[in-house]
Amino acid sequence: NSAREISVLLCSFDSPFIREGQFPYLKIQPVQKIIESADLILALGGDGTILRSVQFIGRRQIPIMGVNLGGLGFLAETSPEEVIQHVENFLNGACVVERRSLLQCEVLDSDEKYFAFNDFVVDKAGFSRVIEIVTRVDGKLLNSYIADALIISTPTGSTAYSLSAGGPIVVPETNVFIVNPICPHSLTNRPVVVPDNSTIMLTVYTEFKEIKLFRDGQLMKSFPNGTRFKLSRAPFVVKLVKMQDKSFYETLRSKLHWGEDFRDKKRWSYQNGKNQSE
Amino acid sequence: NSAREISVLLCSFDSPFIREGQFPYLKIQPVQKIIESADLILALGGDGTILRSVQFIGRRQIPIMGVNLGGLGFLAETSPEEVIQHVENFLNGACVVERRSLLQCEVLDSDEKYFAFNDFVVDKAGFSRVIEIVTRVDGKLLNSYIADALIISTPTGSTAYSLSAGGPIVVPETNVFIVNPICPHSLTNRPVVVPDNSTIMLTVYTEFKEIKLFRDGQLMKSFPNGTRFKLSRAPFVVKLVKMQDKSFYETLRSKLHWGEDFRDKKRWSYQNGKNQSE
Amino acid sequence: NSAREISVLLCSFDSPFIREGQFPYLKIQPVQKIIESADLILALGGDGTILRSVQFIGRRQIPIMGVNLGGLGFLAETSPEEVIQHVENFLNGACVVERRSLLQCEVLDSDEKYFAFNDFVVDKAGFSRVIEIVTRVDGKLLNSYIADALIISTPTGSTAYSLSAGGPIVVPETNVFIVNPICPHSLTNRPVVVPDNSTIMLTVYTEFKEIKLFRDGQLMKSFPNGTRFKLSRAPFVVKLVKMQDKSFYETLRSKLHWGEDFRDKKRWSYQNGKNQSE
Amino acid sequence: NSAREISVLLCSFDSPFIREGQFPYLKIQPVQKIIESADLILALGGDGTILRSVQFIGRRQIPIMGVNLGGLGFLAETSPEEVIQHVENFLNGACVVERRSLLQCEVLDSDEKYFAFNDFVVDKAGFSRVIEIVTRVDGKLLNSYIADALIISTPTGSTAYSLSAGGPIVVPETNVFIVNPICPHSLTNRPVVVPDNSTIMLTVYTEFKEIKLFRDGQLMKSFPNGTRFKLSRAPFVVKLVKMQDKSFYETLRSKLHWGEDFRDKKRWSYQNGKNQSE
Repeated sequence: NSAREISVLLCSFDSPFIREGQFPYLKIQPVQKIIESADLILALGGDGTILRSVQFIGRRQIPIMGVNLGGLGFLAETSPEEVIQHVENFLNGACVVERRSLLQCEVLDSDEKYFAFNDFVVDKAGFSRVIEIVTRVDGKLLNSYIADALIISTPTGSTAYSLSAGGPIVVPETNVFIVNPICPHSLTNRPVVVPDNSTIMLTVYTEFKEIKLFRDGQLMKSFPNGTRFKLSRAPFVVKLVKMQDKSFYETLRSKLHWGEDFRDKKRWSYQNGKNQSE
Repeated sequence: NSAREISVLLCSFDSPFIREGQFPYLKIQPVQKIIESADLILALGGDGTILRSVQFIGRRQIPIMGVNLGGLGFLAETSPEEVIQHVENFLNGACVVERRSLLQCEVLDSDEKYFAFNDFVVDKAGFSRVIEIVTRVDGKLLNSYIADALIISTPTGSTAYSLSAGGPIVVPETNVFIVNPICPHSLTNRPVVVPDNSTIMLTVYTEFKEIKLFRDGQLMKSFPNGTRFKLSRAPFVVKLVKMQDKSFYETLRSKLHWGEDFRDKKRWSYQNGKNQSE
Repeated sequence: NSAREISVLLCSFDSPFIREGQFPYLKIQPVQKIIESADLILALGGDGTILRSVQFIGRRQIPIMGVNLGGLGFLAETSPEEVIQHVENFLNGACVVERRSLLQCEVLDSDEKYFAFNDFVVDKAGFSRVIEIVTRVDGKLLNSYIADALIISTPTGSTAYSLSAGGPIVVPETNVFIVNPICPHSLTNRPVVVPDNSTIMLTVYTEFKEIKLFRDGQLMKSFPNGTRFKLSRAPFVVKLVKMQDKSFYETLRSKLHWGEDFRDKKRWSYQNGKNQSE
Repeated sequence: NSAREISVLLCSFDSPFIREGQFPYLKIQPVQKIIESADLILALGGDGTILRSVQFIGRRQIPIMGVNLGGLGFLAETSPEEVIQHVENFLNGACVVERRSLLQCEVLDSDEKYFAFNDFVVDKAGFSRVIEIVTRVDGKLLNSYIADALIISTPTGSTAYSLSAGGPIVVPETNVFIVNPICPHSLTNRPVVVPDNSTIMLTVYTEFKEIKLFRDGQLMKSFPNGTRFKLSRAPFVVKLVKMQDKSFYETLRSKLHWGEDFRDKKRWSYQNGKNQSE
């Protein structure tokens, strides 16, 4: 295995610091060429880097290992110190490769198609009033949302924008999508969890000239009043290389500070036969 | 079909109004005898009646048709006027029979086992301080909740108590459970949606002498400090007879008043080429 | 009183239907002229009409009576049928005139000043990423919000946009403002209620070229990165003519459907000695 | 000042460790005797200790300085290392004494009266079903809550139980109370902020034999179906000795971890001319 050539897709897509010849042992190749032949993508950066890598990899489904250069991420679990060991583990087949779903968004009456790992958002585009998002699931009317925006999220995206908008945390292995409005005009609108084999059809109305579509937090494009979007599970997955000593639940507790208690000065605990709080 | 004998499990389990001989065409039978031979259970009352019927039916998985004597329910869809037609449809095979999951709760170190159609709740039992609920999913620590109570809900229960406690709406066909704390001491605790093939282990600590277990809103029993509960998907389902002209989404919109808009005097609508709000 | 001349500020600010001479008994006058001499403003339309009227009236503090042409509003309480009676009541001194606070927003390093009856919102302007809003109250750092937007609301505005964003309902007579972020990056951010004699200073940062300021749901202007806004209670109030038979609480229950119960088919009630729900 | 005798109300109300004669310089006196003559109460422990001290002090309004033996509290700001200096400051008049409101709860048709510094809670008492709390503010019906419980909180209590139940954070200087239901049957119920000169009348109905009243997290008593509670601002205040270098906002940010960002690996910051997040 040590003789194996390892190609690295550089995470800093537009880095001015890495140039051909700078590092003799690094072969700089166009992204597309790397994608064609790679067995593993090391995404160096953080969760955002993985989101962008997914767009390059697409249907090729090359396993991605996220290396977090800043701190623990929901997706990027490997610290720089662990990289060599984790790549060894991967090459030795000692890693779990998790298959995560993506969302596909087709713009009806056009050839446009987008893929999201976290979420798609249709948004009122910075103008003053709300938009109306008529939402059908498998042909049945779910709701006609009057809101600032509507998020459609994968389980992976449940800890991203949807969480900011009051959505639930959804464990990656579940086969669902989340439909979650932002600032709806109805107080009874709540996040809705639907099966991921559903077809979600959105027809979006505005009194202004356009609405905006975001993919994984990036603005894709503006669309005219009445545009219809068809969302469904993508025909391919993202393969995430997971470390056996890291669980989703552990990352969750760590990132969301679940050990903290805003009311008591110390954590309550009856586990050890005594209350540690006083 | 008209010659077929139809046994009815009376919904008002303790009704003083219905006695042997009162209605010549009604044969009064013990519930257990009905359960042994019935092909269809008509639950006359509302969602609560169905919850109680499920406890009687258990593993027999007899289809239930909910007849709502008060108004549309999430489970009881058939109005009294529609009963005859719907039973005809059922007998003719013109109904969809939906298979809904139940939760099973085993009390460790005991023989006790309970089944819930909506939810199980472990609760601080009306005393002043919180309880601690150490929660493991498939052997991994999800969180050690410091809260008033913890709800574990099926998708069916997502529109019941869990919704009051800020939980998401979960479409029945999804294969998930919801883990949702009430008044947690951590502001970052959010409802968590887990796969329904998970084993959820709760160890519950209190500084008082007991905690309480509720099933579908009914108090089951009090348990001592340190009791462990093992929750998983029950080995049988509830078969709900659904009408083809009623969808979950339609019931949702109707029950939650999703057509109402608290901000505008009329509903916005750009659908018809004009804004109806002014 | 019947001989008194009544000038009406027409609510439809740009109505093509009302022209000089069309109604012989109507004198059409420029808005500014009406404002100078009016004793009462009848805002015909709804809550939105009152919001716009307030901008015209400003420091003159002329009492406003909202006539709701579409349905009950939070501000516009008088139905068309009641107008004559309510105006009579007003002229006879039989109405309560409620004094409601406004927010004043000064753009530092400029001459710009705006007034809001509901709220001011600083917003990320439809671009993809969040903005940072460093928020100081009376010189002390409240928080450095990383969010899509920040709402600063009067009690009057608590039932408008802030409510959509999860804010509390604040009774008009309270002397407070609400600081409420939209989709914050921190799960522990909650709406904050501050005294209305506070000075709230916002410094807004973006990685894009601009942020947007909204006043009562209307886009005011775009501002560059680093713009500072100083918000405080306006030196004048809005005088709302209130009917004695209408209370804020009644409007609240009516508009928010507080009589409805999503869980039971009927309302529970033990008040009359029996439970009406079954 | 150094010759002044300082009496200390011991925070550990039932401590077995401190006995007469144990410390020669400590005079052990009955609480009531201390209360009669003290100029300053040092509450050694945490926020809970202050809550209990307030019950002893009552109308005497003796200033309280909270010494936090476990970590920063919302009320107990002084660390053990700072005590001597802070007491010196107090004796020299170099401290701010903040006047905080209390809630008074009268049980109608009885002589019972209670005072709360954080909150009163009427609760369903651990039984299975909800209670109905008919809530009138100044004689006007606010709502008839169908819920597990209803919290009435002071601004001081806004960072305690009410926050767990989704309530807003209310700055202490505001003159308001918070009315906040737990798990209401209506999805449109939101926390309501009312002026603190309001009289809040609760009539509480249950189908079981009793409801429970909690004060500052402590169970007071059970009451029968139909009990009426009259809540209003107490005729005296709590005087909290505040340090000039500690602000409510700073404590808030520290206790609620407002510097943390669950989405990005580092905090965004455009303040220093660059984005620190990548």
